[in-house]
Amino acid sequence: MKIIVIGAEGDIGKTVCQELGARHDIVKAGRTKGDMLVDMADRASVDAMYAKVGEVDAVVSTAGEVHFGPLDEFDETTFMLGLRNKVMGQVNLVLAGMDKIAEGGSFTLTSGVLDRDPIRMGAGAATANGALGGFVVGAAIEMPRGLRLNVVSPGMLEVSAPRYGAWFPGHDPVSSVRVGRAYAKSVEGAITGQVIIVE
Amino acid sequence: MKIIVIGAEGDIGKTVCQELGARHDIVKAGRTKGDMLVDMADRASVDAMYAKVGEVDAVVSTAGEVHFGPLDEFDETTFMLGLRNKVMGQVNLVLAGMDKIAEGGSFTLTSGVLDRDPIRMGAGAATANGALGGFVVGAAIEMPRGLRLNVVSPGMLEVSAPRYGAWFPGHDPVSSVRVGRAYAKSVEGAITGQVIIVE
Repeated sequence: MKIIVIGAEGDIGKTVCQELGARHDIVKAGRTKGDMLVDMADRASVDAMYAKVGEVDAVVSTAGEVHFGPLDEFDETTFMLGLRNKVMGQVNLVLAGMDKIAEGGSFTLTSGVLDRDPIRMGAGAATANGALGGFVVGAAIEMPRGLRLNVVSPGMLEVSAPRYGAWFPGHDPVSSVRVGRAYAKSVEGAITGQVIIVE
Repeated sequence: MKIIVIGAEGDIGKTVCQELGARHDIVKAGRTKGDMLVDMADRASVDAMYAKVGEVDAVVSTAGEVHFGPLDEFDETTFMLGLRNKVMGQVNLVLAGMDKIAEGGSFTLTSGVLDRDPIRMGAGAATANGALGGFVVGAAIEMPRGLRLNVVSPGMLEVSAPRYGAWFPGHDPVSSVRVGRAYAKSVEGAITGQVIIVE
């Protein structure tokens, strides 16, 4: 398969590229580095990415920005960041790509653990994660041409723990190998409309 | 208790006013009618509502717009409507009200069935509903002064079935009495951070 991975240089993106790169051709995309540059929160940029990359069999997104901060300090701008970027950005990949990727292809998005196992300062992330879960359930049933759509919801990765662990008291870090397998399940398997939890 | 109900003239809002109005003082709010007018997607309008109504013990929202349409016809504008209005609007009620409502008070928001039991043309609603579920889980743990936060997720109401039933094939309509009880559970009970499902 030819697979485009958006956010390929992040902790999760590297894991995806390692797992799927062993068996498939990977095109790495990102906002600031990669084989091609894309700002997924800008629909025109997403359209340009699809035009440039040609037909792909699978789209994997491990990208998306959210704001972290105390609940009582969120305002509309900081709260909307996650909805505009992590949610609408990943939804743009689906809306712009659903008539472009190969028949039987798949979209695999990324959410996270905070809508089921919350932490302080994580309300924006929890909201974005819940939105993505709702989106794949709602949108998978309308996919044309046998296309599939899932979202992977990983806990904090072991490789991310040195940087983020202090904000996730008591969370069990998950191994990159297990996270990679979740993306393989979505891309190479047959499920659709699922939130694939890794914890 | 003194309870402000936003969206009081809708099918769900009327049910809430009937159930809670039997035991409490209700202030009805809405975008176009009610004891006071508020556009919850506009933070300044929400701030003005709280300034005018004075201290309340509970805030109930049954309001929120989303776009319905075929998945392949959604664009950023139509998709963002649900995130801007149904999600950010209801979140505004919490962010603006959390230092204003009485100690031990509660916020009760409204989502819906489509993120767990999807229908065609409902991807925008499913996304907004999932977002609200994530928000209450994430935000409830940061509520000050014993404040509580829940979201009610009702199936299609019996009273709404004549208008919307054709779009919900095979969905069991839920009675207004049972929907009203879900809001009573949130407002008069002790739970927090819950998605209260009525189906």
